[in-house]
Amino acid sequence: MTMDRPNPATPALIAIDWGTTSMRAFLFAADGSVLEAGAHAAGVMSLPRAGGAAAFDAAFETACGAWLDRWPELPVLAAGMVGSAQGWREAPYVNTPVDADALAAGLIRVESARGVPVAIVPGVLEAGTLPDVMRGEETQIVGALADDPALASGAAGALIGLPGTHAKWAWVRAGRIERFRTYMTGELFAVLRDHTILGRTMRAGEHADAGAFRRGVAVAREGREAGLLATIFSTRTLGLTGQLAPESQGDYLSGLLIGHELNALAAMLAGVGTTLAAQPPRLIGDATLCARYLSALREFGCDGARLVERATERGLWRIATQAGLISAAACTPG
Amino acid sequence: MTMDRPNPATPALIAIDWGTTSMRAFLFAADGSVLEAGAHAAGVMSLPRAGGAAAFDAAFETACGAWLDRWPELPVLAAGMVGSAQGWREAPYVNTPVDADALAAGLIRVESARGVPVAIVPGVLEAGTLPDVMRGEETQIVGALADDPALASGAAGALIGLPGTHAKWAWVRAGRIERFRTYMTGELFAVLRDHTILGRTMRAGEHADAGAFRRGVAVAREGREAGLLATIFSTRTLGLTGQLAPESQGDYLSGLLIGHELNALAAMLAGVGTTLAAQPPRLIGDATLCARYLSALREFGCDGARLVERATERGLWRIATQAGLISAAACTPG
Repeated sequence: MTMDRPNPATPALIAIDWGTTSMRAFLFAADGSVLEAGAHAAGVMSLPRAGGAAAFDAAFETACGAWLDRWPELPVLAAGMVGSAQGWREAPYVNTPVDADALAAGLIRVESARGVPVAIVPGVLEAGTLPDVMRGEETQIVGALADDPALASGAAGALIGLPGTHAKWAWVRAGRIERFRTYMTGELFAVLRDHTILGRTMRAGEHADAGAFRRGVAVAREGREAGLLATIFSTRTLGLTGQLAPESQGDYLSGLLIGHELNALAAMLAGVGTTLAAQPPRLIGDATLCARYLSALREFGCDGARLVERATERGLWRIATQAGLISAAACTPG
Repeated sequence: MTMDRPNPATPALIAIDWGTTSMRAFLFAADGSVLEAGAHAAGVMSLPRAGGAAAFDAAFETACGAWLDRWPELPVLAAGMVGSAQGWREAPYVNTPVDADALAAGLIRVESARGVPVAIVPGVLEAGTLPDVMRGEETQIVGALADDPALASGAAGALIGLPGTHAKWAWVRAGRIERFRTYMTGELFAVLRDHTILGRTMRAGEHADAGAFRRGVAVAREGREAGLLATIFSTRTLGLTGQLAPESQGDYLSGLLIGHELNALAAMLAGVGTTLAAQPPRLIGDATLCARYLSALREFGCDGARLVERATERGLWRIATQAGLISAAACTPG
């Protein structure tokens, strides 16, 4: 009997991106490609609170049970809020600087009801007087690094942005997350629109108003010294004075907030001796939202930013590989 | 028959501070003192929307009808949101710079159902690319100026702050409001606590935690460059890492926001060539909230700030006098 080359289509890993409001499960082939995927509403905060581990187990069975019935020996990896104190089992944070090795070393395991061990990726903590945390984004960042060998090994730093409800921006170097910061931009936009006086004069437009968005970005950039508190009221006063239509006020406010986020980011970059223009970031996330950031970055003189595709899947695969979860025969390089 | 000196206790003016959520009515004596006052829930936004002018008239009768039954000839003045587009009658904004004369000249009149003319104080507009507006605060600022003859006539500028849901800060000189800016600090605090993830880990404390408040102010001051978006998430992460108790998180966040407001204010003052330490402000507003601002100002090296009492009443009286609403016999100097 001779040693066969592994069939690239042989299932080799089940991995789960298990966040606050939803979960996605992936069946990976031995070459790291995704054979099947499923999206589910069973986010950590969507599960019944009183359900405890049983609720996680049930959601896990719904998402992955059929795969495990066919291939009961497959390793399972999960990342995201599933490892938080409110998750299935808490995976303690690992401290910055962090690379894929450190994440692999920090995996914790929970045994599912059917006896399958589920490895959970730890979150990352930046300690200090203004501590910051991430859970799930570390896996996406590792995915972005895996997508770009120069980035993973080079000594030059790079900026990776993850727009969203809680946007994260990370400074990576030599394959490690060195520092990062959370900006509550998405959540702040939603509460300003839905629960403050600013929303009262807004009307939903049929299309996004890209000009109003860029105007908001420019006002924020100009108003860097004055800051967010001094500029957001202009959403209302420009309306009151007939200079901003109700349909455009939402996009203007979005531009203002993202502009102030980029102001903060520029300050963070100054701390590591570079600028946005010199350091076009990689962006990970929803394409429509990332397009807003690309537009805002151009207003800041930063033209070379680009999107990273499939960062979550790449990151899950990379950490599983690094942790030795995938049998040597199945594991492919890169 | 000889000319009598007016009896100081003779009613000479009815004046109303008519805001968004409440109204206060005052019966003034001929010497400018308040003989009677009443507080009512009939704010502009509390009245039935479909009620139109009749709803304002009914609220006016409830607040002032008994006084007008006894003294039907009394002049009536109102200030605040009652003069907005959603008010009883719109009193168009007057543009900065504005003094008591300009406000008196901008009064508009609405006739009540009983045939009494009600004069309404206009709001103030600062035009420009970032326009700003106030309605009601202009009257309080005039009151603060009336309280301090040196301020009203002197060439040196002064800073007047009105903490609240929408805090206003005005730069006044020679009795005029030269520029001002609105900070949505109070409303932002409320929505961050009530509608975002930051509120989830907060618990109400039995007492305010002055240390946590000052810590928030200090973090904001240090984080001037990073800005509000980059610092508010620390309310949560300091809790997650055991460095801030749930009972202290509200006061910490309050300190953060007020600290960022003072950062913005410092930038505005730099624009007129001065600093907070050199320019201790006068504060108008709720005593407990003003005490927070006094504490925050001390963290910014500004020790001499002080509260202005009865600014609303003084301002209403001053504008009524300036407009000639009060008969010469009743009118007293100062």
